[in-house]
Amino acid sequence: MKMWHGRIDAPAANLFEAFTSSVVQDRRLAPYDVQVSMAHARALQRAGLISPADADTLDHALGEIASEIDADTFAWHDELEDVHTHVEVRLREKVGAVADVLHAGRSRNDQVAADLRLYVKDRTRDALGAILDLQTSLVGLAAKYADAVMPGYTHLQQAQPLLIAQPLLAYAAMLERDWERFKDHLARVNRSPLGSGALAGSTFPLDRSFLAEQLGFGGVIANSLDAVSDRDFVVEFVTTAALCMTHLSRLSEDLVLWSSVEFGLIRLPDAFSSGSSMMPQKKNPDVAELVRGKAALVIGDATGVLALVKGIPLGYNRDLQENTTPLYHASDSLLGSLSILAVMLPEIEFDTARAESAISGFAYATDLADLLVEGGMPFREAHAVVGRIVSYCLERGRDLTDLTLAELQAAVPWVQELPEWTASASVRRKRTAGSTHPDAVAEGLRAARAAIDEHRAWLAAGI
Amino acid sequence: MKMWHGRIDAPAANLFEAFTSSVVQDRRLAPYDVQVSMAHARALQRAGLISPADADTLDHALGEIASEIDADTFAWHDELEDVHTHVEVRLREKVGAVADVLHAGRSRNDQVAADLRLYVKDRTRDALGAILDLQTSLVGLAAKYADAVMPGYTHLQQAQPLLIAQPLLAYAAMLERDWERFKDHLARVNRSPLGSGALAGSTFPLDRSFLAEQLGFGGVIANSLDAVSDRDFVVEFVTTAALCMTHLSRLSEDLVLWSSVEFGLIRLPDAFSSGSSMMPQKKNPDVAELVRGKAALVIGDATGVLALVKGIPLGYNRDLQENTTPLYHASDSLLGSLSILAVMLPEIEFDTARAESAISGFAYATDLADLLVEGGMPFREAHAVVGRIVSYCLERGRDLTDLTLAELQAAVPWVQELPEWTASASVRRKRTAGSTHPDAVAEGLRAARAAIDEHRAWLAAGI
Amino acid sequence: MKMWHGRIDAPAANLFEAFTSSVVQDRRLAPYDVQVSMAHARALQRAGLISPADADTLDHALGEIASEIDADTFAWHDELEDVHTHVEVRLREKVGAVADVLHAGRSRNDQVAADLRLYVKDRTRDALGAILDLQTSLVGLAAKYADAVMPGYTHLQQAQPLLIAQPLLAYAAMLERDWERFKDHLARVNRSPLGSGALAGSTFPLDRSFLAEQLGFGGVIANSLDAVSDRDFVVEFVTTAALCMTHLSRLSEDLVLWSSVEFGLIRLPDAFSSGSSMMPQKKNPDVAELVRGKAALVIGDATGVLALVKGIPLGYNRDLQENTTPLYHASDSLLGSLSILAVMLPEIEFDTARAESAISGFAYATDLADLLVEGGMPFREAHAVVGRIVSYCLERGRDLTDLTLAELQAAVPWVQELPEWTASASVRRKRTAGSTHPDAVAEGLRAARAAIDEHRAWLAAGI
Amino acid sequence: MKMWHGRIDAPAANLFEAFTSSVVQDRRLAPYDVQVSMAHARALQRAGLISPADADTLDHALGEIASEIDADTFAWHDELEDVHTHVEVRLREKVGAVADVLHAGRSRNDQVAADLRLYVKDRTRDALGAILDLQTSLVGLAAKYADAVMPGYTHLQQAQPLLIAQPLLAYAAMLERDWERFKDHLARVNRSPLGSGALAGSTFPLDRSFLAEQLGFGGVIANSLDAVSDRDFVVEFVTTAALCMTHLSRLSEDLVLWSSVEFGLIRLPDAFSSGSSMMPQKKNPDVAELVRGKAALVIGDATGVLALVKGIPLGYNRDLQENTTPLYHASDSLLGSLSILAVMLPEIEFDTARAESAISGFAYATDLADLLVEGGMPFREAHAVVGRIVSYCLERGRDLTDLTLAELQAAVPWVQELPEWTASASVRRKRTAGSTHPDAVAEGLRAARAAIDEHRAWLAAGI
Repeated sequence: MKMWHGRIDAPAANLFEAFTSSVVQDRRLAPYDVQVSMAHARALQRAGLISPADADTLDHALGEIASEIDADTFAWHDELEDVHTHVEVRLREKVGAVADVLHAGRSRNDQVAADLRLYVKDRTRDALGAILDLQTSLVGLAAKYADAVMPGYTHLQQAQPLLIAQPLLAYAAMLERDWERFKDHLARVNRSPLGSGALAGSTFPLDRSFLAEQLGFGGVIANSLDAVSDRDFVVEFVTTAALCMTHLSRLSEDLVLWSSVEFGLIRLPDAFSSGSSMMPQKKNPDVAELVRGKAALVIGDATGVLALVKGIPLGYNRDLQENTTPLYHASDSLLGSLSILAVMLPEIEFDTARAESAISGFAYATDLADLLVEGGMPFREAHAVVGRIVSYCLERGRDLTDLTLAELQAAVPWVQELPEWTASASVRRKRTAGSTHPDAVAEGLRAARAAIDEHRAWLAAGI
Repeated sequence: MKMWHGRIDAPAANLFEAFTSSVVQDRRLAPYDVQVSMAHARALQRAGLISPADADTLDHALGEIASEIDADTFAWHDELEDVHTHVEVRLREKVGAVADVLHAGRSRNDQVAADLRLYVKDRTRDALGAILDLQTSLVGLAAKYADAVMPGYTHLQQAQPLLIAQPLLAYAAMLERDWERFKDHLARVNRSPLGSGALAGSTFPLDRSFLAEQLGFGGVIANSLDAVSDRDFVVEFVTTAALCMTHLSRLSEDLVLWSSVEFGLIRLPDAFSSGSSMMPQKKNPDVAELVRGKAALVIGDATGVLALVKGIPLGYNRDLQENTTPLYHASDSLLGSLSILAVMLPEIEFDTARAESAISGFAYATDLADLLVEGGMPFREAHAVVGRIVSYCLERGRDLTDLTLAELQAAVPWVQELPEWTASASVRRKRTAGSTHPDAVAEGLRAARAAIDEHRAWLAAGI
Repeated sequence: MKMWHGRIDAPAANLFEAFTSSVVQDRRLAPYDVQVSMAHARALQRAGLISPADADTLDHALGEIASEIDADTFAWHDELEDVHTHVEVRLREKVGAVADVLHAGRSRNDQVAADLRLYVKDRTRDALGAILDLQTSLVGLAAKYADAVMPGYTHLQQAQPLLIAQPLLAYAAMLERDWERFKDHLARVNRSPLGSGALAGSTFPLDRSFLAEQLGFGGVIANSLDAVSDRDFVVEFVTTAALCMTHLSRLSEDLVLWSSVEFGLIRLPDAFSSGSSMMPQKKNPDVAELVRGKAALVIGDATGVLALVKGIPLGYNRDLQENTTPLYHASDSLLGSLSILAVMLPEIEFDTARAESAISGFAYATDLADLLVEGGMPFREAHAVVGRIVSYCLERGRDLTDLTLAELQAAVPWVQELPEWTASASVRRKRTAGSTHPDAVAEGLRAARAAIDEHRAWLAAGI
Repeated sequence: MKMWHGRIDAPAANLFEAFTSSVVQDRRLAPYDVQVSMAHARALQRAGLISPADADTLDHALGEIASEIDADTFAWHDELEDVHTHVEVRLREKVGAVADVLHAGRSRNDQVAADLRLYVKDRTRDALGAILDLQTSLVGLAAKYADAVMPGYTHLQQAQPLLIAQPLLAYAAMLERDWERFKDHLARVNRSPLGSGALAGSTFPLDRSFLAEQLGFGGVIANSLDAVSDRDFVVEFVTTAALCMTHLSRLSEDLVLWSSVEFGLIRLPDAFSSGSSMMPQKKNPDVAELVRGKAALVIGDATGVLALVKGIPLGYNRDLQENTTPLYHASDSLLGSLSILAVMLPEIEFDTARAESAISGFAYATDLADLLVEGGMPFREAHAVVGRIVSYCLERGRDLTDLTLAELQAAVPWVQELPEWTASASVRRKRTAGSTHPDAVAEGLRAARAAIDEHRAWLAAGI
């Protein structure tokens, strides 16, 4: 039953079969394996190695197998070691000896590389779509709270007032870079290794470009030895996913913080929270916590694929089979996390009144310093003066906004009036592009929407 | 159906259920969860909170559930979020309202921590046993080839002749340290978190030591907050497994090298090799390659659990749920790799004739230098002299063992005879404990066997 | 100049020298390398290979070199490739040709393994001491606030009131396990590889136990091949450090949270905080943030050493040289983080009034449920009832503690009085060992202090 | 002296200073920090905030500081916490109070982000150049041995004969993908965060595009909050470097194997090998081993930066300071490894006679199977027949090439002649693009050279 049964006559121990079988991991590859076989049949026909009738027979039977896989009626057997063998055995059941010709000029090495590339290509396109969905949710939420303010943090200390849209658009911007990276990656994964044989190329005059085109690949991996042993596309997918997951983890960290009683900035939707078996009042940010946890594991997936590839010399080595475990885990985690966050975010409610009142008066210290600079004081001096005023207030248990004009003038005699201590005034004082000024934020919203639209069109056009 | 359904009335979205469910991961914990519930029932009885009759009822029904799980007739439902809920629902089906009292004084937080500790404890004991099995195979193989020699390598360059037993016993020694580490770990995992409630302890007077004893734990995790959020035992198991896997990876690397045509030192058993679909002469070292690949992924598992734990503040956080994925992967990979290598190794045949003849004459250079030192030449000078002799031979395309006495005397006039250029003589010249001298190797074999016996007895005595 | 200059006559390119030199990394090993040479001189004397007078000469000169290294007057030269060569060259300057005999019967392979083990042993003892210091600070802070309460969290949601000492003692407990792990590790690192030659043992009758004893090792690594290529002790140190760093990272995460304006539970000492160049009111938790960052990098160190060791066959391979980079980084990060936290923690002030008032009334929900259970209601039912009461309050914008007896009786008619809604009453209701009840916490403090004392005594006794 | 000295009056403990100082790490950023300040001075002038004369004064003084840094005469002081403070203090020494105005409208948060981007941009360009250098060496070596053959491996078992150029061009192809990835990355790192203030933008009307243009950035990071906390470019550089290092590690693994006595395919140049202090005949592949070791550590660097970024909420957090350690290590390791391999490779000599004769006769099994397929036998049948013939030979201790025509005809009666059992004939039988056929390899060489030329031109044109 094994495809290589000629040489080795000892019965393979069950332990060996169980340890080396890739069937569980390969199931996801089955639809792609069938496509690859269909393309190979046509390439054999084109090379004059099989008749058009035989090619039709193979094509038809492979189409049926594809339907069986699709309908989940395809039978999997523990004793058949991998997906290629499963498809081959089933094909032989259907068409008899003509199935045997299909294997001329190819090897499981180039076959599995092609299957895997088609799989990663689809998941990359899925990721591109899911990123756009989450960006859409972020931008929608930002637009919903376009006028509302909240404290902005550095070092988790209140720094300056922000429009609520500012952090939401910051996350959309991180995802924009993830989108670019996955798009760049897509161009690299979209190359065909077929026609490389086991390592040295094929003795049959297969048209490699024709093979590539049939499967929608944008080009070929030229060097046959490289083609069968390259798994860069797995590593690049997983590391790109890991970076994207760190963004989702940061967002989740903020959601956990913002939904705590202490911050009280948002209410998570009931449908996306769990309670406690022991503490009925709890509403836990489960989704955000799980995303954080999954991000950690995807970093581990990246470590795993890098450490795996690092250890092998040229040519196909069986170590590569193990790559699918972190690949599947990383793609499932990424797509699941992007999707649930995209659905959950629109349901989040900001407590805008609380968010505004939560801003500490000290968050206006920079505004005061800027006022002094605008009045002609060098920045360093203004910074020092405001520092002393802050200390003065803290020592008296007062907020900065409690400061009287007289007190301010005691420090800086020429000042004529107190700054307007409101978040609205603060954000409007900002004057740079990309700042939290309402006009800059509106421009950010516009640009984000335009990019999403453009990207959706690009994705719909296919590659 | 959710255990915390009181507070949250919105229907949980299917997406949320799918994303947050731990059922797939929790299945392995089911037998332990039942044990933990049995112990809790008895602790409630002991505290006077339930009657002996009720405790008996619960105990009996839980015993039935354990049998159902064991027989794989226990029904799993997607809509029940975790293993605790499954057991609770089934228990209520069996005994009605009395099931409801079981949850007084406990929380899923201490429950899952206990389940997981019992699981890790069992896997640690499995690992201890599997390590002994592989050591037994290594020692057996070493004994089988006790008199045979092979080239010894540093930098993958031939260095000096070794007895074949020397590297095999080196691997047994690495595994000995792994055994020690897992044994140390076992003492730490073997502590009970039960009776800690969700974080603050329980208002019911549960006897925590009694809970621990019933489940075979050797002690308790004292601090309740620590008890529910500690996952050190997961991290320690996975990192210990990762280090052990690096040893198996190094062994596998050597098996791959030794079984290559170029080295030709060993023949792998047919039952543990695959062929090639395209190249019928191939006999691939699949097991060794897969072990290397799995080692890479377990390093990723270690990264994952560390990165996960790093990111959370005190108290239970849902991120911790994700820990089971790398834990299960690491334990499966470790136990599978140890087991298959233990079974495969005794089937490996060394080609002792080839191994001996493969030793390059230059591997005797140290012997020549040592001879000069024994004759009174300082080591640095001897080293330099032999270096020049080696260059002299290489330039003439001759091996060091082709050197004539006259040529040697041209370099070192006082030398009276050539060294005996045989591997057997070389290994016998070694005089330190632990060296590759046959007597030292025999002592190594004896000590390894004694340690294995002692460890087996310790393991059989239970902990 | 190179120790192996005999054979290779081409001048080493500068690029090669720079790329392969380990001088920068080896400097830390210099004191240990000298110790190892002193022990070797005495072992040669004992074996009758050098005269007592020569051994004395070597011993004296090596002592001088040790002093030079200690006083930082030892000269380092770029063209000398490693620490061994530096010591050897300096020794020859001092004693002439007698230096040349010192290298009989040893190799840089066993020498560097011994140097490195002595280094790791010292750092492990440092870590054991630094852990005790931080535990002392945690326990001291816990004792200072023995009566004070704060909100306890799970999922970063308020769960139940805790004594402030509870989380502080939880961190001390995590460190207790780290202490155990480093202690277990110390026993394994404390073994001597000396007398193993390059891989096969030595032809000189060196007494390996004597070599070990002189250097304070507790035993020998028996198998010579294992002895020169084992770096388990590096991996175990770094992974143990990584786990300990995750604990410090969790503690730091809590410090960052607690010191935020929103939580407001603690004030960080000025001396351990920085301000902002732009926002003068900021007081940033820099130490805690840097500890978190360093924890991430030490996880990377663990990945690095595991991936490195995974990739090599038996025998010394030059890859191993790279291990020192993550080892040094991990030990510096660990010792620096433990130390600064130990010094900073006693300076932290809890705002006990704010901590108590911050406890949400809903944190008493479990207390209410427990009251109902004590009154005879099954736990599940009590949980559901309290859940409905919580919803009732939330819908009316009221806290749970605003509930009137009449309202409670509307839900549970038989209840005679409201629970005492205070944190003090809540923690006193807990009855299990290790809970947050003041008596249990007092016992935790006592036990932690006793363990610290015992550990200090053990450490002072030496190993 | 600290830039934020106004607010915090307690003297910073020495421990704090040592723990938090980034001076050692920041030194590499000093030249970039000066450039950023020069651009900021001009932006202030353009906004009308300082006079042209003051801008000229600042520009001139900053130019002098740049020269001091370049000449290594710039003085570093332990008590000045970071590079920004150093430059600021020196500037004040030179120009007095006018230095104080320079800090209006900026923050260390956007400043350090800009410095770091300029640094990474330069290292990315360095990597692009170094990759081309190594590709040039690989292609040159491939061309030098254009007609020579060697065994090709899968699973480290001999599979089929290859031209020596085939694996060398495979490595050049891997590097081609690395080149693409670094080029894609360059576009993303080349964006300016300046003008973002601490998080919210600036109250001064700074022209962000003008700031970007002056520094050679290709655009701006729009969102101010994203701009100061984004470190994607560090993660992307390090993960891209890690993948490239795995390629160099695979190449190194092959160099180690090929240079072993057993494979004997290449001779490493003396100038790039070390010997052994104890075994004078050794010629160790140190460079290749160190590259493998460094590759492992760079994987750890990737883990570190991902785990670090994962753990932080939005806004600048001090954890980010730690990123430079893995960044510098990864870039030094990558550039050093690429460079030394580029210099070493042209010095490697293939032993072409040995390489050809090393090809086992069984490596022609596929050729035999293909011959049968060309004769009309279905592939699966041909595979089985050849498998039996291989077994027949192995059982008799004969090579496949010893087979007589009569023996072959006993298995397949219709065969008229034996295949030509030479490597030359075998490689010429390959007919697919990218195969090891000499014409395909010549095309591969041509394409690789054309790509290198094109890339060099692109790089020289600047970005």
